[in-house]
Amino acid sequence: MKRSNRLVTLTNFFLENPREHVQLPYFVRLLQTTKASVSEDMDIIDAVFQQEGLGYLNRTTGAAGGVKFIPEFSQKKSFQFIEKLRQKLEDPSRILPGGYLYMSDLLGNPKTVKEIGRVFASVFSKSHIDVVVTVATKGIPLAYAVASFLDVPVVIVRRDPKVTEGSSVSINYVSGSSRKIQTMVLPKRSLQEGANVCIIDDFMKAGGTITGMVSLLEEFNANVKAIGVLAEADDEEEERVVDNYTSLIKISHVDIKGKKIEVQAGNIGEKSSE
Amino acid sequence: MKRSNRLVTLTNFFLENPREHVQLPYFVRLLQTTKASVSEDMDIIDAVFQQEGLGYLNRTTGAAGGVKFIPEFSQKKSFQFIEKLRQKLEDPSRILPGGYLYMSDLLGNPKTVKEIGRVFASVFSKSHIDVVVTVATKGIPLAYAVASFLDVPVVIVRRDPKVTEGSSVSINYVSGSSRKIQTMVLPKRSLQEGANVCIIDDFMKAGGTITGMVSLLEEFNANVKAIGVLAEADDEEEERVVDNYTSLIKISHVDIKGKKIEVQAGNIGEKSSE
Repeated sequence: MKRSNRLVTLTNFFLENPREHVQLPYFVRLLQTTKASVSEDMDIIDAVFQQEGLGYLNRTTGAAGGVKFIPEFSQKKSFQFIEKLRQKLEDPSRILPGGYLYMSDLLGNPKTVKEIGRVFASVFSKSHIDVVVTVATKGIPLAYAVASFLDVPVVIVRRDPKVTEGSSVSINYVSGSSRKIQTMVLPKRSLQEGANVCIIDDFMKAGGTITGMVSLLEEFNANVKAIGVLAEADDEEEERVVDNYTSLIKISHVDIKGKKIEVQAGNIGEKSSE
Repeated sequence: MKRSNRLVTLTNFFLENPREHVQLPYFVRLLQTTKASVSEDMDIIDAVFQQEGLGYLNRTTGAAGGVKFIPEFSQKKSFQFIEKLRQKLEDPSRILPGGYLYMSDLLGNPKTVKEIGRVFASVFSKSHIDVVVTVATKGIPLAYAVASFLDVPVVIVRRDPKVTEGSSVSINYVSGSSRKIQTMVLPKRSLQEGANVCIIDDFMKAGGTITGMVSLLEEFNANVKAIGVLAEADDEEEERVVDNYTSLIKISHVDIKGKKIEVQAGNIGEKSSE
């Protein structure tokens, strides 16, 4: 195969299979070429990916050596994306009764969701995550986006048990904002003991839902390695019960009467500069 | 920019932006090259995409001319994928009480979900879909996967209204399998009048849920252009109320005592050969 064709095939392969370890002989056969040529192809691809802030090719030598594409947004690209999101959220027509914010249009856009996933996956890239956990409903697309870049499965905690998932573990927890007792359920079969977990959700106020998930995950002896929330909002009445999390956006003030919203970047900026 | 670098950048652009119409001058500036060179680059990429059964570049000439990448799995690739899925589903350890089938592991795998989306998007590629609609919870990841390849938004029908979405339209419908009256809700703001809709769900038995969605969508004067279900199961007691749908998998027989499942390809094969 000619170099130009090989470059298209290889670029497609890496983008479709992030974090998948592949040994060079596989590519030599696939592309009907030599090891040296594949190596040069990868030099080119790696350089372009890095220059565009998309990630890099992680190459290892030796008997089990090979290559995997690690998708990691550059800090600059992440911040540019968050700034655009921030501006969109400041639109006062988003204010809903009760001081909530309409975000379904953004969360309904697969491209926006994918970029959110890419930003989180970049932050958690070195945390050795085995599985992404979220709770139904709105966190689901975000969780899949993060998981696709980390190349790990998604497990969905439900608020109601479903007959189609077999036996399950459930816990009761107190919701931070409504003070109601709620239930969370996770099928036994869905999570291995001792897994490294990344929790993803769309919104956090006092953090009751995430605390509930953490408690439920303790029943599976899971290690919560990372927590990502798209947007956090200050809750003046409640103290936050979760502190080790990453947020992309912070809704600092919603003035319902004056029709004004203040939206800032979340704590992701502080984290990256650590 | 050199041809090899341009090919990597362009391949990435097309894969990240399916169905997005781009005029050539954009690429000429981005890649710091000539129109003729961009044209040659696109010849190479188009040839590789077509050869690998991934889709094609749709190029138009004239004043508003340009290019867009149409991701379309070849029939061969679709059928290979469905056959693998079929074999995985025939594993008898998937049988759950009540004759249900455990599929959460497959639906929890972002790569599998993406491929399912690619297969559906290929079938519905020419249906001028404006929006993908699904119902919480399990259809959500599939809907996003389909929508990402069609480059359209996702709208999620809920079974309970949520305060964070503003005013909404709701309907009651009779569930096919349990004969219970259930509710479905869609926020007013989430769907434009007269939109061309593709309904996606994970599972269909008698089809009550999908009929419910169709009725709800009528309230928005939507045109249901396509219905896709991952798996359909025969319901011996109920006649199916939906007939114009595409399924990838058909669960034809679950023998709980004998621990045997029969899984066939869905009606997608019949459709493609029409």
